[in-house]
Amino acid sequence: MAREITGFSNPLVKRVRSLREKKLRKREGLFLAEGLRILTEARELGVLPEMIFLASGADPHPLASALINAVEAAGGDVIFTTPDILGKMSGKDNAQTLIGVYRDRLTPLPALDRARAPIWFVAQAMRDPGNLGTLMRIGDAVGAGGVILVDDCVDPFSVEAVRASMGAIFTQTIAHASWDEFLAWLRAGPGQLIGTSLNTDQDYQAPAYVPPAFLLIGNEARGLPAGYEAACDLLVKIPMLGRADSLNASVAGAVMAYEVLNQLRRTGDQGTAPQAPE
Amino acid sequence: MAREITGFSNPLVKRVRSLREKKLRKREGLFLAEGLRILTEARELGVLPEMIFLASGADPHPLASALINAVEAAGGDVIFTTPDILGKMSGKDNAQTLIGVYRDRLTPLPALDRARAPIWFVAQAMRDPGNLGTLMRIGDAVGAGGVILVDDCVDPFSVEAVRASMGAIFTQTIAHASWDEFLAWLRAGPGQLIGTSLNTDQDYQAPAYVPPAFLLIGNEARGLPAGYEAACDLLVKIPMLGRADSLNASVAGAVMAYEVLNQLRRTGDQGTAPQAPE
Repeated sequence: MAREITGFSNPLVKRVRSLREKKLRKREGLFLAEGLRILTEARELGVLPEMIFLASGADPHPLASALINAVEAAGGDVIFTTPDILGKMSGKDNAQTLIGVYRDRLTPLPALDRARAPIWFVAQAMRDPGNLGTLMRIGDAVGAGGVILVDDCVDPFSVEAVRASMGAIFTQTIAHASWDEFLAWLRAGPGQLIGTSLNTDQDYQAPAYVPPAFLLIGNEARGLPAGYEAACDLLVKIPMLGRADSLNASVAGAVMAYEVLNQLRRTGDQGTAPQAPE
Repeated sequence: MAREITGFSNPLVKRVRSLREKKLRKREGLFLAEGLRILTEARELGVLPEMIFLASGADPHPLASALINAVEAAGGDVIFTTPDILGKMSGKDNAQTLIGVYRDRLTPLPALDRARAPIWFVAQAMRDPGNLGTLMRIGDAVGAGGVILVDDCVDPFSVEAVRASMGAIFTQTIAHASWDEFLAWLRAGPGQLIGTSLNTDQDYQAPAYVPPAFLLIGNEARGLPAGYEAACDLLVKIPMLGRADSLNASVAGAVMAYEVLNQLRRTGDQGTAPQAPE
């Protein structure tokens, strides 16, 4: 159903704005995604927002029209409003953006199908939403299945993480578990657990990685706890030639994931990656 | 010389705070770096701040004492102040941090010694300070020489870029040039110019990279202009198996740089990388 909102004090405006806070996202089970490109990606994957907000007046972009039609056909709400109110909801000035309100997409770990993809990320106590979003984007690029969040990670449905994911929030499976839950689940099936560490001399290009490969990425400041390293099947070291002893967490994830992907490309053993590289 | 400042309205507090703005950084030729770890890295490389600010009262950390002694011995200013004032200068609440004021480190392109390292980044219109800082950090890790900034890039001496560099601002050479200046300089000596692009079928693992390799990273939103791609010696494509058609700019830089490094590790042709990998 399409309607129009012009008042800042409208309860729906406040409710959407409140979804910028983790506590209220959790309570509602909803999150925000912004921008025509990301919303269109989601639509093409069959994921539609429960509500969509856009500026009234100007003729909408053909892709925006397609979104409007799809949301209405699915029984969702299409709400036209002013750039000021869009700005208030998105936290940006002069927002000509689209805002979609989506049902959150957390997958219970037992429901995660590890055979669906050759690479999975496991993020341990990742604190930076930009890193987590970037990790999802990398996951999309390498044909990973998704990210399993272990310990106290930043909310993957935060506006910053969703933005940095560039739409990968809709392609990557997201699960959350304690370390013990994760380890029990992992060991109940096939899967290599691979940690990057300074406490090893094994070069990251030395082992033969076997899918499904679970790439464990430690906290940005502290790396992996010793007990977590001890639980890994493989500990490897990315070479560092300079003075620094670490890479940014998502960069380390990318270097590891492309190594695994490159090995799988050479052996042709790509598991069930969505699409073969050229 | 050591002294103490306790007033918010002290002109020096205002001056340091003003260095958070690009215009004033440029005018003064100074920039800020924060935190004991980064300042100590710089000291170990022989780079000392002209001024250092730290909280008065508590006994300083031994590394902070070493910094204080080095700054005083070099004729710089050591200024003790309150956490509140440190917070005002650093833009953080309750800052127990150290703040160093450094002379900026831009290298004129003609003075850049390309033979000094096998890998160089060339960032074209990079807009995000986190990306640029992360790229410097990657450069440090792969033994790159530095970053050449082409077109209108974000200021590498911004607080956010310096922070994301994790100290690499002090190990990486930073130069700035127009595209034409850069190209003329590049072609006056050895060097492969390598661009990543969607407009090629050449896999990024296919070519044999030859140092010095100049890795050209395009603007975050628009990628490389067509004319810039045409000037490259090699255009390569990083495989993308998912829906997205690009990686984050610094992530793409890391994937490319580790491929070049890995090739050089295999051939033993590492140019003059600071240190061989294990």
